[in-house]
Amino acid sequence: MFDLQTYLRERKAIVDGELDARLPPVKERPTTLHEAMRYSVLGGGKRFRPILCMAATEAVGEDHRKALLPALAIEILHTYTLIHDDLPAMDNDELRRGQPTCHVKFGEANAILAGDALLTLAFQWIAESSPAKPFSVARLVVELADASGSRGIIGGQVEDIAAEGKEPDPETVEYIHLHKTAELIRSALRIGAMVGGAETKELDALTMYGCNLGLAFQITDDILNATSTSETLGKTVGSDYVREKMTYLSLYGVEGARKRAEELIDQAVSELDKLNGSTEPLKAIAEFVLAREK
Amino acid sequence: MFDLQTYLRERKAIVDGELDARLPPVKERPTTLHEAMRYSVLGGGKRFRPILCMAATEAVGEDHRKALLPALAIEILHTYTLIHDDLPAMDNDELRRGQPTCHVKFGEANAILAGDALLTLAFQWIAESSPAKPFSVARLVVELADASGSRGIIGGQVEDIAAEGKEPDPETVEYIHLHKTAELIRSALRIGAMVGGAETKELDALTMYGCNLGLAFQITDDILNATSTSETLGKTVGSDYVREKMTYLSLYGVEGARKRAEELIDQAVSELDKLNGSTEPLKAIAEFVLAREK
Repeated sequence: MFDLQTYLRERKAIVDGELDARLPPVKERPTTLHEAMRYSVLGGGKRFRPILCMAATEAVGEDHRKALLPALAIEILHTYTLIHDDLPAMDNDELRRGQPTCHVKFGEANAILAGDALLTLAFQWIAESSPAKPFSVARLVVELADASGSRGIIGGQVEDIAAEGKEPDPETVEYIHLHKTAELIRSALRIGAMVGGAETKELDALTMYGCNLGLAFQITDDILNATSTSETLGKTVGSDYVREKMTYLSLYGVEGARKRAEELIDQAVSELDKLNGSTEPLKAIAEFVLAREK
Repeated sequence: MFDLQTYLRERKAIVDGELDARLPPVKERPTTLHEAMRYSVLGGGKRFRPILCMAATEAVGEDHRKALLPALAIEILHTYTLIHDDLPAMDNDELRRGQPTCHVKFGEANAILAGDALLTLAFQWIAESSPAKPFSVARLVVELADASGSRGIIGGQVEDIAAEGKEPDPETVEYIHLHKTAELIRSALRIGAMVGGAETKELDALTMYGCNLGLAFQITDDILNATSTSETLGKTVGSDYVREKMTYLSLYGVEGARKRAEELIDQAVSELDKLNGSTEPLKAIAEFVLAREK
Protein backbone atom coordinates (compact mmCIF):
# COMPACT_ATOMS: atom_id res chain seq x y z
CA MET A 1 0.00 0.00 0.00
CA PHE A 2 1.20 3.53 -0.80
CA ASP A 3 2.58 5.29 2.27
CA LEU A 4 2.35 9.07 1.77
CA GLN A 5 4.29 10.05 4.88
CA THR A 6 7.32 7.98 3.84
CA TYR A 7 7.05 9.30 0.28
CA LEU A 8 6.92 12.94 1.43
CA ARG A 9 9.77 12.44 3.89
CA GLU A 10 12.02 10.81 1.29
CA ARG A 11 11.32 13.42 -1.37
CA LYS A 12 11.78 16.28 1.07
CA ALA A 13 15.18 14.81 2.04
CA ILE A 14 16.23 14.76 -1.63
CA VAL A 15 15.11 18.37 -2.12
CA ASP A 16 16.75 19.59 1.10
CA GLY A 17 20.04 17.87 0.27
CA GLU A 18 20.20 19.16 -3.30
CA LEU A 19 19.31 22.72 -2.27
CA ASP A 20 22.09 22.67 0.31
CA ALA A 21 24.56 21.37 -2.29
CA ARG A 22 23.59 23.81 -5.05
CA LEU A 23 23.07 27.14 -3.28
CA PRO A 24 26.14 29.42 -3.29
CA PRO A 25 28.37 28.70 -0.26
CA VAL A 26 28.45 31.17 2.63
CA LYS A 27 32.22 31.56 2.35
CA GLU A 28 31.85 33.02 -1.15
CA ARG A 29 31.49 36.81 -1.48
CA PRO A 30 28.94 38.39 -0.85
CA THR A 31 28.94 36.27 2.31
CA THR A 32 26.05 37.89 4.18
CA LEU A 33 23.78 37.65 1.16
CA HIS A 34 24.61 34.01 0.59
CA GLU A 35 24.00 33.37 4.28
CA ALA A 36 20.59 35.09 4.03
CA MET A 37 19.66 33.08 0.92
CA ARG A 38 20.59 29.79 2.59
CA TYR A 39 18.88 30.76 5.86
CA SER A 40 15.56 31.34 4.14
CA VAL A 41 15.70 28.39 1.73
CA LEU A 42 17.11 25.80 4.13
CA GLY A 43 15.14 26.87 7.23
CA GLY A 44 12.45 24.25 6.71
CA GLY A 45 9.33 24.06 4.61
CA LYS A 46 7.22 21.19 3.36
CA ARG A 47 8.81 21.32 -0.15
CA PHE A 48 5.26 20.96 -1.45
CA ARG A 49 5.89 22.52 -4.89
CA PRO A 50 9.07 20.60 -5.82
CA ILE A 51 7.50 17.35 -4.63
CA LEU A 52 4.47 18.06 -6.83
CA CYS A 53 6.74 18.89 -9.78
CA MET A 54 8.57 15.57 -9.50
CA ALA A 55 5.30 13.69 -8.91
CA ALA A 56 3.96 15.13 -12.18
CA THR A 57 6.96 13.72 -14.04
CA GLU A 58 6.22 10.30 -12.50
CA ALA A 59 2.54 10.68 -13.40
CA VAL A 60 3.44 10.91 -17.09
CA GLY A 61 5.63 7.81 -16.78
CA GLU A 62 9.14 9.27 -16.38
CA ASP A 63 11.74 9.10 -13.61
CA HIS A 64 11.15 11.84 -11.02
CA ARG A 65 14.86 12.68 -10.95
CA LYS A 66 14.53 14.25 -14.40
CA ALA A 67 12.51 17.02 -12.74
CA LEU A 68 14.94 17.67 -9.89
CA LEU A 69 16.54 20.89 -11.14
CA PRO A 70 13.31 22.64 -12.24
CA ALA A 71 11.72 21.46 -8.98
CA LEU A 72 14.49 23.18 -7.02
CA ALA A 73 14.06 26.30 -9.15
CA ILE A 74 10.36 26.43 -8.26
CA GLU A 75 11.14 26.02 -4.55
CA ILE A 76 13.65 28.90 -4.43
CA LEU A 77 11.26 31.06 -6.43
CA HIS A 78 8.62 30.27 -3.80
CA THR A 79 11.10 31.22 -1.05
CA TYR A 80 11.74 34.59 -2.70
CA THR A 81 7.99 35.34 -2.64
CA LEU A 82 7.90 34.52 1.10
CA ILE A 83 10.89 36.77 1.87
CA HIS A 84 9.39 39.72 0.00
CA ASP A 85 5.85 39.10 1.35
CA ASP A 86 7.20 39.18 4.92
CA LEU A 87 8.90 42.60 4.48
CA PRO A 88 7.77 45.52 6.66
CA ALA A 89 6.37 47.31 3.59
CA MET A 90 4.21 44.24 2.79
CA ASP A 91 2.78 41.82 5.38
CA ASN A 92 5.35 42.81 8.03
CA ASP A 93 5.67 39.28 9.47
CA GLU A 94 8.40 38.53 11.99
CA LEU A 95 8.00 34.75 12.19
CA ARG A 96 8.25 32.15 9.44
CA ARG A 97 8.63 28.39 9.92
CA GLY A 98 9.19 29.05 13.61
CA GLN A 99 12.20 31.32 12.97
CA PRO A 100 12.72 35.10 12.62
CA THR A 101 11.96 36.21 9.06
CA CYS A 102 14.83 37.12 6.73
CA HIS A 103 14.62 40.90 7.27
CA VAL A 104 14.46 40.48 11.06
CA LYS A 105 17.62 38.36 10.96
CA PHE A 106 19.64 40.12 8.20
CA GLY A 107 18.07 43.57 7.81
CA GLU A 108 15.73 44.88 5.15
CA ALA A 109 18.29 45.59 2.43
CA ASN A 110 19.73 42.08 2.58
CA ALA A 111 16.23 40.55 2.62
CA ILE A 112 15.18 42.44 -0.51
CA LEU A 113 18.42 41.48 -2.27
CA ALA A 114 18.32 37.85 -1.09
CA GLY A 115 14.83 37.60 -2.60
CA ASP A 116 16.04 39.18 -5.84
CA ALA A 117 18.98 36.78 -5.98
CA LEU A 118 16.80 33.71 -5.42
CA LEU A 119 14.38 34.80 -8.16
CA THR A 120 17.34 35.26 -10.52
CA LEU A 121 18.87 31.91 -9.55
CA ALA A 122 15.51 30.21 -10.13
CA PHE A 123 15.64 31.27 -13.77
CA GLN A 124 19.23 30.11 -14.06
CA TRP A 125 18.33 26.67 -12.73
CA ILE A 126 15.28 26.30 -14.93
CA ALA A 127 17.46 27.24 -17.93
CA GLU A 128 19.96 24.53 -16.98
CA SER A 129 17.33 21.78 -16.97
CA SER A 130 16.64 19.35 -19.84
CA PRO A 131 12.97 19.10 -20.86
CA ALA A 132 11.85 16.21 -23.08
CA LYS A 133 10.79 16.95 -26.66
CA PRO A 134 8.68 18.67 -27.93
CA PHE A 135 9.22 20.97 -24.93
CA SER A 136 12.15 23.41 -24.70
CA VAL A 137 13.99 25.40 -22.06
CA ALA A 138 12.45 28.52 -23.59
CA ARG A 139 8.97 27.13 -22.92
CA LEU A 140 9.84 26.29 -19.28
CA VAL A 141 11.22 29.79 -18.67
CA VAL A 142 8.13 31.43 -20.17
CA GLU A 143 5.88 29.12 -18.12
CA LEU A 144 7.63 30.06 -14.87
CA ALA A 145 7.81 33.77 -15.72
CA ASP A 146 4.10 33.84 -16.56
CA ALA A 147 3.13 32.18 -13.30
CA SER A 148 5.32 34.42 -11.17
CA GLY A 149 5.08 37.81 -12.92
CA SER A 150 2.67 40.73 -12.75
CA ARG A 151 -0.04 38.55 -14.27
CA GLY A 152 0.70 35.75 -11.77
CA ILE A 153 1.95 35.66 -8.16
CA ILE A 154 2.94 39.32 -8.05
CA GLY A 155 -0.51 40.38 -9.30
CA GLY A 156 -2.06 38.27 -6.54
CA GLN A 157 0.15 39.85 -3.91
CA VAL A 158 -0.66 43.40 -5.11
CA GLU A 159 -4.41 42.77 -5.00
CA ASP A 160 -4.08 40.98 -1.64
CA ILE A 161 -2.48 44.06 -0.07
CA ALA A 162 -4.92 46.43 -1.82
CA ALA A 163 -7.95 44.40 -0.60
CA GLU A 164 -7.03 44.62 3.10
CA GLY A 165 -9.87 46.16 5.11
CA LYS A 166 -12.26 46.25 2.14
CA GLU A 167 -15.67 44.56 1.93
CA PRO A 168 -14.97 41.01 0.62
CA ASP A 169 -16.27 40.19 -2.85
CA PRO A 170 -16.10 36.77 -4.55
CA GLU A 171 -14.37 37.99 -7.73
CA THR A 172 -11.45 39.59 -5.86
CA VAL A 173 -11.01 36.60 -3.54
CA GLU A 174 -10.93 34.31 -6.59
CA TYR A 175 -8.36 36.55 -8.30
CA ILE A 176 -6.12 36.65 -5.22
CA HIS A 177 -6.26 32.88 -4.57
CA LEU A 178 -5.74 31.97 -8.20
CA HIS A 179 -2.78 34.28 -8.71
CA LYS A 180 -1.10 34.33 -5.32
CA THR A 181 -1.09 30.56 -4.81
CA ALA A 182 -2.71 28.39 -7.47
CA GLU A 183 -0.65 29.55 -10.45
CA LEU A 184 2.74 28.48 -9.09
CA ILE A 185 1.36 25.13 -7.93
CA ARG A 186 -0.19 24.63 -11.35
CA SER A 187 3.11 25.60 -12.96
CA ALA A 188 5.03 23.16 -10.76
CA LEU A 189 2.82 20.39 -12.16
CA ARG A 190 2.98 21.65 -15.74
CA ILE A 191 6.76 21.97 -15.66
CA GLY A 192 7.06 18.45 -14.21
CA ALA A 193 4.79 17.23 -17.00
CA MET A 194 6.84 19.01 -19.69
CA VAL A 195 10.11 17.68 -18.34
CA GLY A 196 8.60 14.20 -18.62
CA GLY A 197 7.46 14.77 -22.21
CA ALA A 198 3.72 14.74 -21.45
CA GLU A 199 1.10 14.13 -24.14
CA THR A 200 -1.36 17.00 -24.63
CA LYS A 201 -4.17 15.30 -22.71
CA GLU A 202 -1.77 14.62 -19.83
CA LEU A 203 -0.57 18.22 -19.71
CA ASP A 204 -4.19 19.40 -19.70
CA ALA A 205 -5.14 16.99 -16.91
CA LEU A 206 -2.19 18.04 -14.73
CA THR A 207 -3.02 21.70 -15.41
CA MET A 208 -6.58 21.18 -14.11
CA TYR A 209 -5.38 19.06 -11.19
CA GLY A 210 -2.87 21.79 -10.27
CA CYS A 211 -5.35 24.64 -10.48
CA ASN A 212 -7.93 22.88 -8.30
CA LEU A 213 -5.31 21.65 -5.83
CA GLY A 214 -3.78 25.13 -5.63
CA LEU A 215 -7.10 26.80 -4.84
CA ALA A 216 -7.88 24.13 -2.22
CA PHE A 217 -4.41 24.61 -0.71
CA GLN A 218 -4.97 28.36 -0.28
CA ILE A 219 -8.39 27.78 1.29
CA THR A 220 -7.00 25.27 3.82
CA ASP A 221 -4.17 27.74 4.50
CA ASP A 222 -6.74 30.40 5.34
CA ILE A 223 -8.65 27.93 7.56
CA LEU A 224 -5.45 27.07 9.46
CA ASN A 225 -4.63 30.78 9.87
CA ALA A 226 -7.97 31.18 11.62
CA THR A 227 -8.15 27.93 13.62
CA SER A 228 -4.61 26.64 14.36
CA THR A 229 -1.92 27.77 16.81
CA SER A 230 1.44 29.50 16.25
CA GLU A 231 3.20 26.50 17.79
CA THR A 232 1.73 24.11 15.22
CA LEU A 233 2.18 26.37 12.17
CA GLY A 234 5.47 28.06 13.05
CA LYS A 235 4.06 31.39 11.92
CA THR A 236 1.69 34.03 13.21
CA VAL A 237 -1.95 32.88 13.29
CA GLY A 238 -5.08 34.99 13.29
CA SER A 239 -3.21 37.61 11.24
CA ASP A 240 -5.69 37.45 8.35
CA TYR A 241 -8.49 38.49 10.72
CA VAL A 242 -6.40 41.22 12.37
CA ARG A 243 -5.32 42.66 9.00
CA GLU A 244 -8.83 42.23 7.56
CA LYS A 245 -7.48 40.07 4.71
CA MET A 246 -9.96 39.21 2.00
CA THR A 247 -10.11 35.40 2.22
CA TYR A 248 -12.57 32.62 1.47
CA LEU A 249 -13.42 32.56 5.17
CA SER A 250 -14.35 36.24 5.17
CA LEU A 251 -16.95 35.36 2.51
CA TYR A 252 -18.26 31.91 3.48
CA GLY A 253 -17.02 31.14 7.02
CA VAL A 254 -15.03 28.07 8.06
CA GLU A 255 -17.66 25.52 7.09
CA GLY A 256 -18.34 27.05 3.68
CA ALA A 257 -14.62 27.22 3.00
CA ARG A 258 -14.08 23.59 4.02
CA LYS A 259 -16.92 22.46 1.74
CA ARG A 260 -15.44 24.38 -1.20
CA ALA A 261 -12.01 22.83 -0.58
CA GLU A 262 -13.58 19.35 -0.65
CA GLU A 263 -15.24 20.04 -4.01
CA LEU A 264 -11.96 21.29 -5.46
CA ILE A 265 -10.05 18.23 -4.26
CA ASP A 266 -12.72 15.93 -5.78
CA GLN A 267 -12.31 17.73 -9.11
CA ALA A 268 -8.52 17.51 -8.89
CA VAL A 269 -8.54 13.76 -8.23
CA SER A 270 -11.01 13.12 -11.08
CA GLU A 271 -8.38 14.35 -13.57
CA LEU A 272 -5.84 11.70 -12.62
CA ASP A 273 -7.43 8.90 -14.68
CA LYS A 274 -6.17 10.60 -17.85
CA LEU A 275 -2.52 10.01 -16.97
CA ASN A 276 -0.27 7.18 -18.21
CA GLY A 277 2.13 6.94 -15.24
CA SER A 278 1.94 6.47 -11.50
CA THR A 279 -0.76 8.68 -9.97
CA GLU A 280 -0.97 7.30 -6.42
CA PRO A 281 1.26 10.06 -5.00
CA LEU A 282 -0.82 12.87 -6.56
CA LYS A 283 -4.05 11.28 -5.29
CA ALA A 284 -2.68 10.91 -1.78
CA ILE A 285 -1.27 14.46 -1.78
CA ALA A 286 -4.67 15.87 -2.78
CA GLU A 287 -6.36 14.08 0.11
CA PHE A 288 -3.59 15.20 2.43
CA VAL A 289 -4.14 18.88 1.53
CA LEU A 290 -7.69 18.57 2.83
CA ALA A 291 -6.67 16.81 6.07
CA ARG A 292 -3.46 18.70 6.87
CA GLU A 293 -2.95 20.33 10.24
CA LYS A 294 -0.07 22.57 9.18
CA MET B 1 30.90 60.43 -41.51
CA PHE B 2 29.33 58.57 -38.60
CA ASP B 3 27.03 60.78 -36.53
CA LEU B 4 26.73 59.34 -33.01
CA GLN B 5 24.06 61.72 -31.76
CA THR B 6 21.69 60.79 -34.60
CA TYR B 7 22.49 57.10 -34.11
CA LEU B 8 21.78 57.25 -30.36
CA ARG B 9 18.59 59.27 -30.89
CA GLU B 10 17.23 56.84 -33.49
CA ARG B 11 18.07 53.74 -31.48
CA LYS B 12 16.62 55.25 -28.29
CA ALA B 13 13.40 55.99 -30.19
CA ILE B 14 13.15 52.35 -31.29
CA VAL B 15 13.74 51.11 -27.74
CA ASP B 16 11.29 53.59 -26.21
CA GLY B 17 8.57 52.72 -28.71
CA GLU B 18 8.95 48.97 -28.32
CA LEU B 19 9.02 49.15 -24.53
CA ASP B 20 5.80 51.16 -24.57
CA ALA B 21 4.18 48.64 -26.91
CA ARG B 22 5.29 45.53 -25.02
CA LEU B 23 4.89 46.42 -21.34
CA PRO B 24 1.55 45.30 -19.80
CA PRO B 25 -1.12 48.01 -20.28
CA VAL B 26 -2.21 50.09 -17.28
CA LYS B 27 -5.84 49.11 -17.78
CA GLU B 28 -5.00 45.46 -17.09
CA ARG B 29 -5.17 44.19 -13.50
CA PRO B 30 -3.13 44.80 -11.30
CA THR B 31 -3.44 48.36 -12.61
CA THR B 32 -1.32 50.20 -10.03
CA LEU B 33 1.54 47.76 -10.46
CA HIS B 34 1.46 48.05 -14.23
CA GLU B 35 1.39 51.82 -13.88
CA ALA B 36 4.44 51.68 -11.58
CA MET B 37 6.31 49.40 -14.00
CA ARG B 38 5.59 51.70 -16.96
CA TYR B 39 6.41 54.83 -14.92
CA SER B 40 9.87 53.58 -14.07
CA VAL B 41 10.72 52.04 -17.46
CA LEU B 42 9.28 54.79 -19.66
CA GLY B 43 10.36 57.77 -17.54
CA GLY B 44 13.50 58.41 -19.57
CA GLY B 45 16.96 56.95 -19.58
CA LYS B 46 19.73 56.87 -22.14
CA ARG B 47 18.94 53.24 -23.16
CA PHE B 48 22.67 52.69 -23.04
CA ARG B 49 22.55 48.91 -22.48
CA PRO B 50 19.99 48.00 -25.18
CA ILE B 51 21.79 50.25 -27.68
CA LEU B 52 25.06 48.44 -26.86
CA CYS B 53 23.34 45.07 -27.23
CA MET B 54 22.06 45.92 -30.71
CA ALA B 55 25.40 47.50 -31.67
CA ALA B 56 27.15 44.22 -30.76
CA THR B 57 24.87 42.34 -33.15
CA GLU B 58 25.82 44.83 -35.89
CA ALA B 59 29.49 44.48 -34.96
CA VAL B 60 29.37 40.75 -35.78
CA GLY B 61 27.71 41.51 -39.11
CA GLU B 62 24.00 40.93 -38.37
CA ASP B 63 20.93 43.19 -38.45
CA HIS B 64 20.50 45.04 -35.14
CA ARG B 65 16.77 44.27 -35.10
CA LYS B 66 17.55 40.62 -34.32
CA ALA B 67 18.70 41.80 -30.90
CA LEU B 68 15.67 43.95 -30.13
CA LEU B 69 13.85 41.65 -27.68
CA PRO B 70 16.91 40.66 -25.60
CA ALA B 71 17.96 44.34 -25.66
CA LEU B 72 14.59 45.30 -24.16
CA ALA B 73 14.95 42.51 -21.58
CA ILE B 74 18.31 43.93 -20.47
CA GLU B 75 16.83 47.43 -20.19
CA ILE B 76 13.92 46.40 -17.94
CA LEU B 77 16.28 44.31 -15.84
CA HIS B 78 18.41 47.44 -15.45
CA THR B 79 15.28 49.41 -14.45
CA TYR B 80 14.45 46.84 -11.75
CA THR B 81 17.94 47.32 -10.23
CA LEU B 82 17.39 51.09 -10.14
CA ILE B 83 13.97 50.76 -8.45
CA HIS B 84 15.32 48.45 -5.75
CA ASP B 85 18.56 50.46 -5.29
CA ASP B 86 16.50 53.61 -4.68
CA LEU B 87 14.39 52.02 -1.88
CA PRO B 88 14.55 53.52 1.63
CA ALA B 89 16.25 50.35 2.93
CA MET B 90 18.99 50.76 0.28
CA ASP B 91 20.25 54.08 -1.13
CA ASN B 92 17.04 55.93 -0.12
CA ASP B 93 17.01 58.16 -3.23
CA GLU B 94 13.98 60.31 -3.94
CA LEU B 95 14.92 61.56 -7.41
CA ARG B 96 15.70 59.58 -10.56
CA ARG B 97 15.85 60.95 -14.09
CA GLY B 98 14.42 64.21 -12.77
CA GLN B 99 11.27 62.53 -11.39
CA PRO B 100 10.22 61.13 -7.99
CA THR B 101 11.53 57.56 -7.56
CA CYS B 102 9.09 54.65 -7.82
CA HIS B 103 8.57 54.20 -4.06
CA VAL B 104 8.00 57.93 -3.57
CA LYS B 105 5.32 57.88 -6.27
CA PHE B 106 3.66 54.47 -5.67
CA GLY B 107 4.70 53.45 -2.13
CA GLU B 108 7.30 50.96 -1.01
CA ALA B 109 5.29 47.76 -1.49
CA ASN B 110 4.44 48.61 -5.09
CA ALA B 111 8.04 49.61 -5.80
CA ILE B 112 9.41 46.31 -4.48
CA LEU B 113 6.82 44.36 -6.48
CA ALA B 114 7.25 46.45 -9.65
CA GLY B 115 10.97 45.66 -9.50
CA ASP B 116 10.24 41.96 -8.98
CA ALA B 117 7.82 41.98 -11.91
CA LEU B 118 10.31 43.67 -14.25
CA LEU B 119 13.03 41.17 -13.34
CA THR B 120 10.61 38.35 -14.06
CA LEU B 121 9.47 39.88 -17.35
CA ALA B 122 13.11 40.33 -18.39
CA PHE B 123 13.58 36.56 -18.23
CA GLN B 124 10.36 36.02 -20.16
CA TRP B 125 11.51 38.34 -22.95
CA ILE B 126 14.98 36.83 -23.15
CA ALA B 127 13.35 33.38 -23.40
CA GLU B 128 11.18 34.60 -26.27
CA SER B 129 14.16 35.75 -28.34
CA SER B 130 15.84 33.79 -31.15
CA PRO B 131 19.63 33.47 -30.87
CA ALA B 132 21.64 32.30 -33.88
CA LYS B 133 23.29 28.87 -33.76
CA PRO B 134 25.31 27.56 -31.95
CA PHE B 135 23.79 29.72 -29.22
CA SER B 136 20.53 28.81 -27.46
CA VAL B 137 17.86 30.50 -25.35
CA ALA B 138 19.15 28.47 -22.42
CA ARG B 139 22.59 30.04 -22.85
CA LEU B 140 21.13 33.57 -23.01
CA VAL B 141 19.10 33.02 -19.83
CA VAL B 142 22.13 31.66 -17.95
CA GLU B 143 24.24 34.59 -19.22
CA LEU B 144 21.72 37.14 -17.95
CA ALA B 145 21.11 35.33 -14.64
CA ASP B 146 24.85 35.10 -14.00
CA ALA B 147 25.39 38.80 -14.64
CA SER B 148 22.46 39.88 -12.48
CA GLY B 149 22.49 37.35 -9.60
CA SER B 150 24.31 37.14 -6.28
CA ARG B 151 27.61 36.71 -8.14
CA GLY B 152 26.82 39.71 -10.38
CA ILE B 153 24.87 42.95 -9.90
CA ILE B 154 23.30 41.92 -6.60
CA GLY B 155 26.70 41.02 -5.15
CA GLY B 156 27.97 44.45 -6.21
CA GLN B 157 25.03 46.17 -4.55
CA VAL B 158 25.47 44.23 -1.29
CA GLU B 159 29.18 45.11 -1.08
CA ASP B 160 28.44 48.72 -2.09
CA ILE B 161 26.08 49.14 0.88
CA ALA B 162 28.40 47.23 3.24
CA ALA B 163 31.38 49.42 2.23
CA GLU B 164 29.70 52.73 3.10
CA GLY B 165 31.76 54.68 5.63
CA LYS B 166 34.67 52.24 5.53
CA GLU B 167 38.28 53.03 4.59
CA PRO B 168 38.47 52.62 0.77
CA ASP B 169 40.58 49.74 -0.53
CA PRO B 170 41.33 49.00 -4.21
CA GLU B 171 40.13 45.38 -4.14
CA THR B 172 36.68 46.26 -2.80
CA VAL B 173 36.26 49.19 -5.22
CA GLU B 174 37.18 46.87 -8.10
CA TYR B 175 34.69 44.22 -6.92
CA ILE B 176 31.87 46.78 -6.59
CA HIS B 177 32.50 48.41 -9.98
CA LEU B 178 32.89 45.13 -11.79
CA HIS B 179 29.77 43.54 -10.34
CA LYS B 180 27.44 46.49 -9.87
CA THR B 181 27.94 47.97 -13.34
CA ALA B 182 30.41 46.29 -15.67
CA GLU B 183 28.85 42.81 -15.68
CA LEU B 184 25.48 43.85 -17.11
CA ILE B 185 27.12 46.06 -19.73
CA ARG B 186 29.41 43.18 -20.67
CA SER B 187 26.40 40.86 -20.80
CA ALA B 188 24.50 43.28 -23.04
CA LEU B 189 27.37 43.04 -25.52
CA ARG B 190 27.77 39.28 -25.17
CA ILE B 191 24.05 38.67 -25.65
CA GLY B 192 24.03 40.92 -28.72
CA ALA B 193 27.01 38.95 -30.04
CA MET B 194 25.30 35.60 -29.39
CA VAL B 195 22.07 36.70 -31.04
CA GLY B 196 24.15 37.59 -34.09
CA GLY B 197 25.93 34.20 -34.12
CA ALA B 198 29.38 35.55 -33.17
CA GLU B 199 32.56 33.59 -33.81
CA THR B 200 34.56 32.76 -30.67
CA LYS B 201 37.14 35.50 -31.27
CA GLU B 202 34.33 38.02 -31.78
CA LEU B 203 32.57 36.98 -28.58
CA ASP B 204 35.86 37.26 -26.68
CA ALA B 205 36.60 40.70 -28.14
CA LEU B 206 33.13 42.02 -27.27
CA THR B 207 33.47 40.56 -23.77
CA MET B 208 36.71 42.49 -23.22
CA TYR B 209 35.29 45.63 -24.83
CA GLY B 210 32.24 45.38 -22.53
CA CYS B 211 34.21 44.84 -19.36
CA ASN B 212 36.52 47.79 -20.00
CA LEU B 213 33.68 50.03 -21.15
CA GLY B 214 31.57 49.06 -18.11
CA LEU B 215 34.34 49.90 -15.66
CA ALA B 216 34.99 53.23 -17.43
CA PHE B 217 31.25 53.97 -17.36
CA GLN B 218 31.10 53.48 -13.57
CA ILE B 219 34.15 55.67 -13.04
CA THR B 220 32.68 58.51 -15.14
CA ASP B 221 29.40 58.04 -13.23
CA ASP B 222 31.27 58.58 -9.97
CA ILE B 223 33.05 61.63 -11.41
CA LEU B 224 29.72 63.15 -12.46
CA ASN B 225 28.22 62.41 -9.04
CA ALA B 226 31.01 64.53 -7.54
CA THR B 227 31.29 67.30 -10.12
CA SER B 228 27.94 67.80 -11.94
CA THR B 229 24.64 69.37 -10.88
CA SER B 230 21.23 67.84 -10.08
CA GLU B 231 19.70 69.81 -12.95
CA THR B 232 22.05 68.22 -15.48
CA LEU B 233 21.90 64.67 -14.13
CA GLY B 234 18.26 64.52 -13.02
CA LYS B 235 19.31 62.77 -9.83
CA THR B 236 20.89 63.69 -6.51
CA VAL B 237 24.57 64.66 -6.82
CA GLY B 238 27.23 64.61 -4.14
CA SER B 239 25.43 61.67 -2.50
CA ASP B 240 28.48 59.39 -2.80
CA TYR B 241 30.48 61.82 -0.69
CA VAL B 242 27.68 62.32 1.83
CA ARG B 243 27.12 58.55 2.22
CA GLU B 244 30.88 57.88 2.21
CA LYS B 245 30.54 55.53 -0.77
CA MET B 246 33.65 53.59 -1.68
CA THR B 247 34.37 54.82 -5.23
CA TYR B 248 37.34 55.25 -7.53
CA LEU B 249 37.40 58.91 -6.54
CA SER B 250 37.70 58.08 -2.86
CA LEU B 251 40.91 56.21 -3.75
CA TYR B 252 42.52 58.26 -6.52
CA GLY B 253 40.72 61.63 -6.71
CA VAL B 254 39.04 63.13 -9.82
CA GLU B 255 42.21 63.30 -11.91
CA GLY B 256 43.36 59.77 -11.09
CA ALA B 257 39.88 58.46 -11.88
CA ARG B 258 39.75 60.31 -15.20
CA LYS B 259 43.13 58.90 -16.19
CA ARG B 260 42.03 55.36 -15.36
CA ALA B 261 38.84 55.79 -17.41
CA GLU B 262 40.93 56.92 -20.40
CA GLU B 263 43.12 53.81 -20.17
CA LEU B 264 40.08 51.55 -20.00
CA ILE B 265 38.48 53.19 -23.04
CA ASP B 266 41.72 52.79 -25.02
CA GLN B 267 41.75 49.09 -24.15
CA ALA B 268 38.08 48.74 -25.11
CA VAL B 269 38.58 50.37 -28.51
CA SER B 270 41.66 48.23 -29.24
CA GLU B 271 39.44 45.11 -29.20
CA LEU B 272 37.23 46.31 -32.04
CA ASP B 273 39.66 45.33 -34.83
CA LYS B 274 38.82 41.68 -34.21
CA LEU B 275 35.21 42.06 -35.34
CA ASN B 276 33.78 41.28 -38.77
CA GLY B 277 30.89 43.76 -38.85
CA SER B 278 30.36 47.48 -38.41
CA THR B 279 32.27 48.79 -35.38
CA GLU B 280 31.96 52.55 -35.86
CA PRO B 281 29.06 52.82 -33.37
CA LEU B 282 30.93 50.93 -30.63
CA LYS B 283 34.03 53.08 -31.18
CA ALA B 284 32.03 56.31 -31.00
CA ILE B 285 30.10 55.13 -27.92
CA ALA B 286 33.36 54.36 -26.09
CA GLU B 287 34.68 57.84 -26.77
CA PHE B 288 31.33 59.30 -25.75
CA VAL B 289 31.46 57.57 -22.35
CA LEU B 290 34.65 59.46 -21.60
CA ALA B 291 33.28 62.83 -22.73
CA ARG B 292 29.71 62.56 -21.42
CA GLU B 293 28.23 65.26 -19.22
CA LYS B 294 25.30 63.20 -17.92
